[in-house]
Amino acid sequence: MRAAIMYEAGDVRVQDALDPVIEQSTDAVVRIVRSCVCGSDLHPYHTMSASDGPVPMGHEFLGVVEELGSEVSGFKRGDLVVSPFAFADNTCELCREGLHTSCPNGGFYAAGGVGGGQAEAVRVPQAQGTLVKLPVGEDSALLPSLLTLADVYGTGYHAAKQARVTRGDTVTVIGDGAVGLLAVLSAKQLGAERIILMGRHKDRTDLGRHFGATDVIPERGEEGIAKLRDLTAGQGSRAVLEAVGHMPAYEMAVGAVRPGGVISRVGVPQYEDAPIGFGSLFGPNITLTGGPAPVRAYIDELLPAVLDGAVEPGRVFDRTVSLDQVPEGYRAMDQREALKVFVTP
Amino acid sequence: MRAAIMYEAGDVRVQDALDPVIEQSTDAVVRIVRSCVCGSDLHPYHTMSASDGPVPMGHEFLGVVEELGSEVSGFKRGDLVVSPFAFADNTCELCREGLHTSCPNGGFYAAGGVGGGQAEAVRVPQAQGTLVKLPVGEDSALLPSLLTLADVYGTGYHAAKQARVTRGDTVTVIGDGAVGLLAVLSAKQLGAERIILMGRHKDRTDLGRHFGATDVIPERGEEGIAKLRDLTAGQGSRAVLEAVGHMPAYEMAVGAVRPGGVISRVGVPQYEDAPIGFGSLFGPNITLTGGPAPVRAYIDELLPAVLDGAVEPGRVFDRTVSLDQVPEGYRAMDQREALKVFVTP
Repeated sequence: MRAAIMYEAGDVRVQDALDPVIEQSTDAVVRIVRSCVCGSDLHPYHTMSASDGPVPMGHEFLGVVEELGSEVSGFKRGDLVVSPFAFADNTCELCREGLHTSCPNGGFYAAGGVGGGQAEAVRVPQAQGTLVKLPVGEDSALLPSLLTLADVYGTGYHAAKQARVTRGDTVTVIGDGAVGLLAVLSAKQLGAERIILMGRHKDRTDLGRHFGATDVIPERGEEGIAKLRDLTAGQGSRAVLEAVGHMPAYEMAVGAVRPGGVISRVGVPQYEDAPIGFGSLFGPNITLTGGPAPVRAYIDELLPAVLDGAVEPGRVFDRTVSLDQVPEGYRAMDQREALKVFVTP
Repeated sequence: MRAAIMYEAGDVRVQDALDPVIEQSTDAVVRIVRSCVCGSDLHPYHTMSASDGPVPMGHEFLGVVEELGSEVSGFKRGDLVVSPFAFADNTCELCREGLHTSCPNGGFYAAGGVGGGQAEAVRVPQAQGTLVKLPVGEDSALLPSLLTLADVYGTGYHAAKQARVTRGDTVTVIGDGAVGLLAVLSAKQLGAERIILMGRHKDRTDLGRHFGATDVIPERGEEGIAKLRDLTAGQGSRAVLEAVGHMPAYEMAVGAVRPGGVISRVGVPQYEDAPIGFGSLFGPNITLTGGPAPVRAYIDELLPAVLDGAVEPGRVFDRTVSLDQVPEGYRAMDQREALKVFVTP
C-alpha cells in the first residue's frame, strides 16, 4: 500500500509500505476512505530530527472494515467506521470513566508498531472498543464532518467539557486552528453566552463567528489581554480554552482568565515547565485542566447532531488533496494557506 | 499595644506598637483573645531579608469587637468574633461566588497598612463582610477549634472542596502540618473512603489517623510514590491535596495522582515555574487547582459541627504561649517541636 512517512522536519513522503495485517485477535484492518492532516502533525514537521525518523503519519481517519480479528464482534467486513485518534479497549475502569486516552490497553496511531492514518489502510488495535460504526455510505456528503469526530471536534469538545462550560457562560478560545474553532462550536453547544475567539486569520475567525463566537480579538500578548479585559469589564473570562500548545498561548490564557476560573488546555504543550505559582495560577485560584481528548467518550454524544446536519464541524476542511499529495497538504497548512487539509485515497 | 514584628528571617520580636483605630467607616477594631502561628509564617521566618522588614505578623485570630465604623451593622461592642485570614466585603460578585480571597475590596492582614493577628488588637477592614459572630463566651473550651476557622480548617476544607472529594473517594494528603491534617478531616467529612496521609512525624500522623486517615506513608520522593502506588493497585490517587508548598511536594503530587485525577494545592507555592507539560499533567489529563482559601465561604458550613463538638480541629494546637512568648512559638514550630502554636494575650 501507499503511506505518508515523515523523515525529518519538513520532509514528508508518500511511498510504498507493507500492507497492514491482523497481528492480534483484537485487531481490525481498515481501508482508509478519508483522512486528514492535524495541527499537531505540524509540531514534528517543524522540529523532528532525522534520527527520530522515518515515522508513519496521521491519526484521524474513517474507512471500511476489511478484516477482523477473531475476538472482535459487533462489526462486519464492509462497515464504514470512524476511529478516535487513540485506540482503547473501552471496557477498563479508566475507559468506563471516559478517560480512553489513559487506557492501559490503548495507545496512539503512528507509534509503537501501529501505522498512521495518512495511508491506504491501517491496523486498528483494540478494534471493538475503538471503532464506531457510521450509518452512512462511502459517498455521504457528511464524511468531512464525521471525520472530525476522530479528533478535532472531540478535542474541542473536551476543552469545553473539562472547563465545565455551562449555559450563560463567558468563554475565551485561544487559537483559530481547527481545534480552536471546534472548541467555539462546542462551547456554543454547551450554552455559552459569550464566546471570545483570539485569532488573527480573518477567514478562520469568520468561520469561528459562524460556529458561535460573539467577539474576535486578533491582537496577541499584552495587547490581546488588555482587549479581552476591556470586553469583560476588567475581570477576564470564566473559562479559557487553550488550543495552541505554545508557551505564548499559555501565558495569554493566564492573562485572560478570571479569578476562580479555568484554563482548559487541548493544544499539545510544546513546553514542560511553566508558571503556576502565586503570581499566575495559585493567587487567583485558577484551575488548570485538559489533556489529550478521550474522543471515544464523546462520539455517541456528538454524532446525532452531525448526522442530522444541525452542526457542520467539517467546515474546518478548506482544502482537499489525494494521498499522494499529502506532502503538499503539510506545506499548505504550514504556510497557513489551508486551515485543515482533507485527504482522499 | 504589644504586637509581634518580624525584622528578618529568624528574628521576631514582640514590642510596643500604635493602637489600631477606625480608619474607614467599614472598619472595626477587635481586641484579640486568641491567635496562633501559621505554617505559612515560617516561609518568611526562613527567607525574609532585613530590607523587607519590619512587618507585623499573624493572620489568624478571634477576639472581641471594641469599636465599629459607622457603616458596619450586625455587630455590637463586646461580640466575640472570628476573622478569616483574608478580609472581604462579602457582597461583590466574586464573594457571592465564594471567592473572597479575590474580593476587589479585600486584602490580607499584616500587609498594606493593616496590622497582624499576633497582637493585642487589630483593625479589621470590611468588618461587616469579614467577621463572623461566635455564639460562645471568651472562656469557651471551643476557642481552639473555633480559631481554626480563621485559616487552617477552612484551608484544608478548600483543598478537599476544590478537588471535589465525594463519598467513596480515594484521597491522598501531602503534608502533616495543621493544614494537611485538617485536609484529612475535611476529606473524611466529605465522605472519602480511603485517605492516605503522607507525612513522617508520628505524633502528627497519629492525629491524622484520628481525623480519618486510613493509611500513612512516611517515605518521601520516589520511595513514597512507589509505596502509594502499591496501596492503590498501581493507579495512584483520584485526588491529591498538597498542603506543603515546596517543589518536592508538588513533584510528589504529580507522582501520586491517578490519570484523570486532581491535584489541589493549598500550601503556598515557594516556586513559580513547575512541570505541567505532556510528561506531568497534560498526558494523563490531570487537573491542577487550589489557591488561597476563601475561608469566609466555608465558616457557616463548618461552624455547626465545631459548636456541637462533632469535630475537634483545635487538636492541631499542641503548644500554648502568651503574646510575649511568640518568638519562642516560632522557634518551636520551626524546630518541629510544636505542630501549631496557640497564642493567648
